[in-house]
Amino acid sequence: MQLVPAILQGAGPARRRALAKAITLLESTRADHRAQADALLTTLLPHTGRSLRLGISGVPGVGKSTFIEALGLFLIERGHRVAVLAVDPSSTVSGGSILGDKTRMERLSMDERAYIRPSPSSGTLGGVAEKTREALLVCEAAGYDVVIVETVGVGQSETAVAGMTDMYCLLQLPNAGDDLQAIKKGVMELADLVLINKADIDPAAATRAQAQITSSLRLLGLHHRPDHVAHDPAQWQAQVLPLSALKGEGIERFWAAVSSFKASQEARGRFAEKRRQQSLAWMWERIRADLEHRFQHAPAVQAVLSETTERVLQGQLAPSTAARELLTRFLGDPSHA
Amino acid sequence: MQLVPAILQGAGPARRRALAKAITLLESTRADHRAQADALLTTLLPHTGRSLRLGISGVPGVGKSTFIEALGLFLIERGHRVAVLAVDPSSTVSGGSILGDKTRMERLSMDERAYIRPSPSSGTLGGVAEKTREALLVCEAAGYDVVIVETVGVGQSETAVAGMTDMYCLLQLPNAGDDLQAIKKGVMELADLVLINKADIDPAAATRAQAQITSSLRLLGLHHRPDHVAHDPAQWQAQVLPLSALKGEGIERFWAAVSSFKASQEARGRFAEKRRQQSLAWMWERIRADLEHRFQHAPAVQAVLSETTERVLQGQLAPSTAARELLTRFLGDPSHA
Repeated sequence: MQLVPAILQGAGPARRRALAKAITLLESTRADHRAQADALLTTLLPHTGRSLRLGISGVPGVGKSTFIEALGLFLIERGHRVAVLAVDPSSTVSGGSILGDKTRMERLSMDERAYIRPSPSSGTLGGVAEKTREALLVCEAAGYDVVIVETVGVGQSETAVAGMTDMYCLLQLPNAGDDLQAIKKGVMELADLVLINKADIDPAAATRAQAQITSSLRLLGLHHRPDHVAHDPAQWQAQVLPLSALKGEGIERFWAAVSSFKASQEARGRFAEKRRQQSLAWMWERIRADLEHRFQHAPAVQAVLSETTERVLQGQLAPSTAARELLTRFLGDPSHA
Repeated sequence: MQLVPAILQGAGPARRRALAKAITLLESTRADHRAQADALLTTLLPHTGRSLRLGISGVPGVGKSTFIEALGLFLIERGHRVAVLAVDPSSTVSGGSILGDKTRMERLSMDERAYIRPSPSSGTLGGVAEKTREALLVCEAAGYDVVIVETVGVGQSETAVAGMTDMYCLLQLPNAGDDLQAIKKGVMELADLVLINKADIDPAAATRAQAQITSSLRLLGLHHRPDHVAHDPAQWQAQVLPLSALKGEGIERFWAAVSSFKASQEARGRFAEKRRQQSLAWMWERIRADLEHRFQHAPAVQAVLSETTERVLQGQLAPSTAARELLTRFLGDPSHA
């Protein structure tokens, strides 16, 4: 596979082209492409892992692209190579609402030291997230040392992005109720850092929001949710920082916070451990999603699924009995398993 | 099966004994018992559905049993027959922390018009919830017209109970931060009604909590989460009521709110529709859980699972590749499916 040397050692535009080609291969739904993609991933794997993986989330209009462009330009000026990927569940319907148009980050996308890839649109959030996880690994093999994964606050994409990055940052506006929405959706507790964007427009509101969110985070931190690997309040108290992405104010302070987070995680052995746990969680997530997909599309199940569903809806069959009957059709008698 | 006539037409203690025996059968893990239980459920199913299913949730110490006993006594005095079931995920570890001891509801448990059953302890929350769902159906067939399902705020049991009841009520204390915890856990948005217990101890704090929670519910209601069937803020704005379970104050007002909720749901055709959606969600939940269980215990998977897991943790195998390899061992080549 000639892609491998081009990704690992290629120079300039040739390397970017090989990278783009590899990601297109990963996104293909053809079975022979998938086999090639798996072989490619396994070959590249020893060369991955040497980037900082940064998740950036926020609702539409919060200023994500402005922030990411400003951050990307800041980083390449300091010698970094920056890749920007996206997980956009709405892209499966609309054909992509974030990063579909590269002109959104015009200056960054023209720079040879940056690579911007729009969200894949492969049917389900699980599919989109999986392609992005794999693309992230290929970007690392191609020498990008900061990989930014952007997501919009739709569906459960925030959880997916927090589960594939080293540090997860939430962009907020200084609006009343926004923090409550983030808490409700469980996004706030995923956050390693909360950024209050557009702080220049109304500094007083930004200060109020900062105090409010800091207090919420402290109250939430009292009860640690043990089933989530991404956030560990005992070891890192999430910070809240004001920012003006448009004016470029606060970028340097943000990067200092990122560096300090990374150092703190590494000192505690948490950095590598979190990645190990993320890998395992990713494996199980794919197993669960694929099992359900295979179940739903199995001919033995499809033959009776709509009739069984109807009997459950009509109250003629208990849901648990229906589940057992369908599973027996799919896998055989469980008592022989 | 002699249980069926005893459940459907039996009188007094004989009926309660048959009910208890049927639930024990449902809870059995023996394959032949399971087949009998499925047959029993299918036979009883046409006689189910005629109760009001009420979920009561709240953290330990909030006064759930005191409230349920007061409510139960209030209801049987008015001619109702009341069954109390429980979903306690901690019971799988500790052997039962709620309802394990019937003396917790001493007066109610001694009354012939009430039936109290402790939480099953069958290994996983899914298993516990499934047994309780099935027990609920049997209680309905036995003529109980109010079934209360109690749960403690541990794990995801609140979601499970909201998914099996017509109305889900959250018991809170008037403490700062408690509402934030409930919002964080997504319990607040499940609630059709929030009760502030022990309101007699500090009426001013209860009033403050009522205002705070009402305001939170209004803000949360702005964004309706479409994937959840249990709560529909467009059609019912969740109420917040003060209560003193110990003094029996507020029980009558609570029951009036329950009746008004039911009437409002029925008038909009929501009552039956919600049960239909709950049945379907229950079926899929069981399918997913059982698929994963069968996968994990399949000999072909077990033979390589720990080695594959280790290779993923060591970064030698991409998690998505590992998932595909394991699935092929379990189900065969997906390209032939």
